[in-house]
Amino acid sequence: MTNNHIENQPKVVILGGGFGGLYAAQALKKAPVQVTLVDKRNFHLFQPLLYQVATGVLSPADIASPLRLVLSQHNNAKVLLDEVIDIAPQTKQVYLKGHDPISYDILIVATGVSHHYFGNDQWSELAPGLKTIEDALEIRRRIYMAFEAAEKESDPVKRQAWLTFVIVGGGPTGVELAGAIAEIAHKALQGEFRDIDTSEAKILLIEGLDRVLPPYPPELSAKAEKDLTELGVTVQTQSMVTDINDHIVTVRQGEQLKQISARTILWAAGVKASKMGQVLAEQTGVELDRAGRVIVEPDLSIQGYRDIFVIGDLANFPYQGERPLPGVAPVAMQEGDYVAKLIQKRIKGETSSSFYYKDFGSLAVIGQNKAVVDLGFAKFSGVLAWMLWVWAHIYYLIEFDNKLIVMLQWGWNYFTLGRGARLITGEGQTRISEPAIVPEEQEKVPSITH
Amino acid sequence: MTNNHIENQPKVVILGGGFGGLYAAQALKKAPVQVTLVDKRNFHLFQPLLYQVATGVLSPADIASPLRLVLSQHNNAKVLLDEVIDIAPQTKQVYLKGHDPISYDILIVATGVSHHYFGNDQWSELAPGLKTIEDALEIRRRIYMAFEAAEKESDPVKRQAWLTFVIVGGGPTGVELAGAIAEIAHKALQGEFRDIDTSEAKILLIEGLDRVLPPYPPELSAKAEKDLTELGVTVQTQSMVTDINDHIVTVRQGEQLKQISARTILWAAGVKASKMGQVLAEQTGVELDRAGRVIVEPDLSIQGYRDIFVIGDLANFPYQGERPLPGVAPVAMQEGDYVAKLIQKRIKGETSSSFYYKDFGSLAVIGQNKAVVDLGFAKFSGVLAWMLWVWAHIYYLIEFDNKLIVMLQWGWNYFTLGRGARLITGEGQTRISEPAIVPEEQEKVPSITH
Repeated sequence: MTNNHIENQPKVVILGGGFGGLYAAQALKKAPVQVTLVDKRNFHLFQPLLYQVATGVLSPADIASPLRLVLSQHNNAKVLLDEVIDIAPQTKQVYLKGHDPISYDILIVATGVSHHYFGNDQWSELAPGLKTIEDALEIRRRIYMAFEAAEKESDPVKRQAWLTFVIVGGGPTGVELAGAIAEIAHKALQGEFRDIDTSEAKILLIEGLDRVLPPYPPELSAKAEKDLTELGVTVQTQSMVTDINDHIVTVRQGEQLKQISARTILWAAGVKASKMGQVLAEQTGVELDRAGRVIVEPDLSIQGYRDIFVIGDLANFPYQGERPLPGVAPVAMQEGDYVAKLIQKRIKGETSSSFYYKDFGSLAVIGQNKAVVDLGFAKFSGVLAWMLWVWAHIYYLIEFDNKLIVMLQWGWNYFTLGRGARLITGEGQTRISEPAIVPEEQEKVPSITH
Repeated sequence: MTNNHIENQPKVVILGGGFGGLYAAQALKKAPVQVTLVDKRNFHLFQPLLYQVATGVLSPADIASPLRLVLSQHNNAKVLLDEVIDIAPQTKQVYLKGHDPISYDILIVATGVSHHYFGNDQWSELAPGLKTIEDALEIRRRIYMAFEAAEKESDPVKRQAWLTFVIVGGGPTGVELAGAIAEIAHKALQGEFRDIDTSEAKILLIEGLDRVLPPYPPELSAKAEKDLTELGVTVQTQSMVTDINDHIVTVRQGEQLKQISARTILWAAGVKASKMGQVLAEQTGVELDRAGRVIVEPDLSIQGYRDIFVIGDLANFPYQGERPLPGVAPVAMQEGDYVAKLIQKRIKGETSSSFYYKDFGSLAVIGQNKAVVDLGFAKFSGVLAWMLWVWAHIYYLIEFDNKLIVMLQWGWNYFTLGRGARLITGEGQTRISEPAIVPEEQEKVPSITH
């Protein structure tokens, strides 16, 4: 393999192969620069469909594209599978876990966010969040294992705890998960169990604010809540989770404290910046917001360092002087694209105007034929919204073979309501036996007060 | 859910949802019996294609079918996700890890086999075998991680060790793995790396006997070896692995001892019976063969117990007084079918003739357009053999949506040589950094003598 890099071209180092980083790398295809994309995973993940892996509709590979494959035709790009430890802005170097330090002329930081348990990190084991493929497989394992355990449980109180699913957080991810689990319990698994009725499952969606999908217009939130209720989800707004312990979720609603006995608790309530935010703050003095995100300049660089850019979920870009832009794929994609163009202009000696986010609208799916769409000039819901959601998600899948597989899988599921990818795999597989092996642990479960 | 079991019908308990157990359950669909299928996994695995998951062609869900879904229309069947601990033939009970004991009138044991390291169980970590989905994902992780590590390694000796793949065992699984890894290195990954030439990878297939695919006719073994060599595999027959240690495989070829420095070592050399063989021997006194398999009677029951049957890979059925039947899917399927029919005849008071295996031939695939087929009356290889292999494997996939997805994936791969499902996932993901974190460990690697 000959190395096509031209050694005297500027070195652009991109940290993170998500929507921000990958779109920046792609938009630099013909630029006279050497691109190095560093990621600790060897694939780009299409995160908007991750909940479909977590609920057994799609396989991990359907929503992941190998970074090397995506960039194989980019002669100026190389991929490095590694983890970033630190950066040194003075010497313009990036320190990696498994490789010599690499130099940059321009650094693009796009390492995203992870779950935020608001100071209760001990909840992460009890209530996993959904950010990685591993998260999705763990959630899938817990959901389907819960039905298996319920089938074997003869005590009706314990059985109901296995059939109770609590989703914390009523944003798009929480809504999608709640809707999908309701469809599993009420439709997909019908007729497969002999000793339980899966439609007796309780699915609770807990949201702190006064409505689900808080960033959406109120009428769409109301429509989403109606759809969720029809699917069999119990929506509890203005409710805060105050404790998670021994399969008990404690929820405060106004003055009232409720305890819910549930064996499956999922976390969709908050995100915090990846550790690169902290690294940047220490090394450059840049300001972070409360979630640890980096406050960026109008051109997405950081104050005092015009060669360091932060894009995607990690960036806090004050949108038209208002709230920061939301952590969604379209923002990251446009930011990646913008920085790539800025770099090319800078090489030519041209200047760039500030970044401006073109908002094409928001989409959230609730279930089959059920979605809400806010295009700004128009808001709608139902089958049309759902079809737009399907189209948009297929369209943006990076690899053509992923598009084909996902289309085929969705088409098949549409008619059969199937959940073919519902394997219970991985390390935790023996936990099904928990109740039988450690029966004393079960005794701690108080009566269900919900 | 109403329980459709009729309480006074005979209870048939099937242990294991592989080809033997599942086909027995399916063939009992209309029989006046209550069927309980116990498996520790919630899916049937189409094992003949497991190597395609291990090499990044297919996703786990493509070759797995949820047992409950397969049996959902069987009103007389229930599925229990659990692990068998023991059986009591006197009281006719099966003891489970996470459930009360269950009673049987007829017991069908079909729990299969696992890897056999011939007394060197410490090799299992260094040289994983291929039996479960988890095995396949671990092997996939190691194969693709090896190329990533090679890309980052500047020392040519260490780099070559990352690019050396040793497959121990030249049976069908070893041949399939070796051929697939050669296609990955020489075709699929071409053009994706910048600092290594993946086609410099060495793939070694080590076989103790004098030819690969020993159970096949010699001319097909010769053809397979020729095909493998063309794909870039080095075949070493009459070679025994005597040690695996610190990424060094020691191989004895006649009088000569060779050391091969390789970071990826895969085990396809032997199988031993699952622990149910031992349990049966202890509880019934039945004779086991050297691999721990249960010697069965002509009707697949075990001596002295006409209500206990052993089928599939766990059974040693002396074929026409000769060698035992091979541990392949068609044998297990026919045995499952036979026992199901025998049970129905017994209920009617009829007798059954002995089990007879109808051998439709053997198929092994080496790579794209390369396979060998032995139909008994005809032996052939090449494109036609490969097409027959493709057809047979699609045909026997249990679920219709799996058939569609696998066909589409294969069709796409045929033209692109792609490996879309090559995600590096799971616990071991940080091992890439091993060389950099523990460089002293690397120093132990002696020079490559191969």
